[in-house]
Amino acid sequence: MTNETLDDAAGLLPAEAIDAIERAATSAHRHENLFSERAANIKQSAVRDVFDISMRPGLVSLAGGSPYLQSLPLERLAATAGSIIAENGLTALQYGSGQGTEELRAQICEVMAAEGILDALPQNVVITAGSQSAQDIATKVFCNPGDVVLVENPTYVGALNTFEAYQVQVETVEMDGSGMVPDLLEARIAALQTAGKNIKFLYTIPSFNNPSGITLAPERRQEIVDICRRANILVLEDNPYGLLRFDGEPLEPLRAANPSDVIYMGSFSKIFAPGLRIGWALVPEHLQRRYYLAAESVTLCPPTFNQMLVSAYLRDYDWKGQIETYRGLYAQRCQAMLAALEEYMPPGLSWTTPEGGFFVWVTLPEGVDTYPLLKKAIDAGVVFIPGAAFTPSVESSNKLRLAFSAVPPDAIVEGVRRLAPVLREAIAAL
Amino acid sequence: MTNETLDDAAGLLPAEAIDAIERAATSAHRHENLFSERAANIKQSAVRDVFDISMRPGLVSLAGGSPYLQSLPLERLAATAGSIIAENGLTALQYGSGQGTEELRAQICEVMAAEGILDALPQNVVITAGSQSAQDIATKVFCNPGDVVLVENPTYVGALNTFEAYQVQVETVEMDGSGMVPDLLEARIAALQTAGKNIKFLYTIPSFNNPSGITLAPERRQEIVDICRRANILVLEDNPYGLLRFDGEPLEPLRAANPSDVIYMGSFSKIFAPGLRIGWALVPEHLQRRYYLAAESVTLCPPTFNQMLVSAYLRDYDWKGQIETYRGLYAQRCQAMLAALEEYMPPGLSWTTPEGGFFVWVTLPEGVDTYPLLKKAIDAGVVFIPGAAFTPSVESSNKLRLAFSAVPPDAIVEGVRRLAPVLREAIAAL
Repeated sequence: MTNETLDDAAGLLPAEAIDAIERAATSAHRHENLFSERAANIKQSAVRDVFDISMRPGLVSLAGGSPYLQSLPLERLAATAGSIIAENGLTALQYGSGQGTEELRAQICEVMAAEGILDALPQNVVITAGSQSAQDIATKVFCNPGDVVLVENPTYVGALNTFEAYQVQVETVEMDGSGMVPDLLEARIAALQTAGKNIKFLYTIPSFNNPSGITLAPERRQEIVDICRRANILVLEDNPYGLLRFDGEPLEPLRAANPSDVIYMGSFSKIFAPGLRIGWALVPEHLQRRYYLAAESVTLCPPTFNQMLVSAYLRDYDWKGQIETYRGLYAQRCQAMLAALEEYMPPGLSWTTPEGGFFVWVTLPEGVDTYPLLKKAIDAGVVFIPGAAFTPSVESSNKLRLAFSAVPPDAIVEGVRRLAPVLREAIAAL
Repeated sequence: MTNETLDDAAGLLPAEAIDAIERAATSAHRHENLFSERAANIKQSAVRDVFDISMRPGLVSLAGGSPYLQSLPLERLAATAGSIIAENGLTALQYGSGQGTEELRAQICEVMAAEGILDALPQNVVITAGSQSAQDIATKVFCNPGDVVLVENPTYVGALNTFEAYQVQVETVEMDGSGMVPDLLEARIAALQTAGKNIKFLYTIPSFNNPSGITLAPERRQEIVDICRRANILVLEDNPYGLLRFDGEPLEPLRAANPSDVIYMGSFSKIFAPGLRIGWALVPEHLQRRYYLAAESVTLCPPTFNQMLVSAYLRDYDWKGQIETYRGLYAQRCQAMLAALEEYMPPGLSWTTPEGGFFVWVTLPEGVDTYPLLKKAIDAGVVFIPGAAFTPSVESSNKLRLAFSAVPPDAIVEGVRRLAPVLREAIAAL
């Protein structure tokens, strides 16, 4: 044993404790070189970082994009869950099909029809552990280390974590108020392909982007797919919020008119219950088999009981009515947040006006770094997510994400009121 | 359009149909080069292959290792599931911690204590989607393409699929009736390391191995870990059946005395309910953080509702009594299978005598390939899994796996009776 620090400590600790410390230190050292190259790329998500903090009593959390489950018919759902086990427990608690139950895959096609995808077939649906897992599988199936994935700037932090775990090079395309700018996408692709890069797919959240709340304008949608098709790049469309548009009909997803070029990902996390971890991918026919086998190699099969509960919900409940309730609820909360921002925020800030979803994206003056402001905000009794989380860049960010989904309007107003002096002080210090 | 077949068909099909076929064929062709290198390695599991067939009425399935859920208290579980949603629905249906709930992680430490692991801490437990997902995460965290993973021969088909999905080189170590042979393991490691190979871990199912039913003898257990430690190789111990020993106390897992060198994987699939997809990994302290972050990047968090149901089961039910019930039940079924094999099988066959678990491993004379016998067996009304599924080799196998867990003793006897003439005929044809 040559570790000097440990030798120095020998007079202070019993020999057994020293042995245990030495063994642990030695194992840590010995095993360090066993990690895969990708392991070093797997980071803590900033959203998950503040997940526990957000639970502290007295804090107003504008951090997490949790849906407001209080409006679900919990008593009735309790009875449904009970009768699934009582009447079909031997199926619900047993292993099931790796692709998901036939009933739920057929029902998912109806859900997608409500969004404008009219030609989906149950055999091309793969049920996954939330859409997070659907992204993971897509990356597994398509990306070698060093391959390029394109994303909007900003984009979903969980997707960035997934891509980095596969050692993918993530390249961003800028948005304006109407979403990703087609010309910039085309130029970016050309530059990367000219440089010999292998671009595998564009990951996009076209409706009410997380974190920005920005929606890709209808007139840009086909153009985005056409640009990708010409460059032989798949589109990975993440649409968990699509049905939660505040006014009017849902916008047609990119997938609707492009069955061969778009892998579409949906989720019950925002329109029903995230705690069940049930999402799905609608995969082009010619890519389905490899996608499905990769899903199976990760989890064997999705939980049967959870699928049956979602099926019962879609079959026996007014799930479209519940979405109407959510739409009204989130529209009201979004309004409360926008009004509070207007009332309390200092000059020099701007923010997006979302047409749906869960998030408002706030831009501070150049030079403000929102990351160190998080601690001050927590001291002031409010939590947000700093903008740097939503970009692959290591540079600091003058943006922040506010979620209005999980807390009632008066708490939203109070949270914004608490946040305002923290931001004012940061701007004054410039 | 230059595809001649399509041009030939032009007179027979409407132009629109031709266009659709051409577009699909063109997309399939265009996208072929987008697959990752690992995608080509992801295969259908032979077990999953016959999953649907096994459901056919009239067939006796000795294929799937499904637990016999009929002995669970379904009425009471129905009430429990209902009250979780009625009383704690806002937690059960919401996002949760990426590592799993604190309550369940503490309870899992008690489950492991029943197996002989007495020093497990909840903070080193990561809850996963079954132990399949725990294997996937370990491979993600430790294996680069081309790295070596050691396995027993034969081993679990799902693990092989996972390793192949990460382009890992799987190398086998032979077993005898007392499990993996330490000298062979040591020689194998030496040969591979001399050849410059990077061996990352030994994946082992020491108790009632799937598919062979063989148990690693107690006197070999520490020796196996010591050999790996000396070579700086982790041990990935998969122990879903450990508590299902027919007689006497469970054998001490490899993890028990080796907290720094073994990642231990457990599951509620065999001792409670696979349809909930709840398993876990107990990870050495110094490896925990990277393991946990990788888990989070795949599924965000395990399903809260399912974890709460398992917690209620461990808290309020006689789960140890239920395991006693299972032990008696599976012991009886194993006896029925062994007796039926004795009665019906032709000369020239041998089989293992398991001390627990779900499986008997049958060896036919050299030269018989069990794969083509599967179709004949299905025609005769019985399903098994051909041995080739459980080895990374592409060679044919004269072995087959029979599961006694899922069907009652009289059906087991009938299944073996139906299988016998199929095997007799194959041997006669040699």
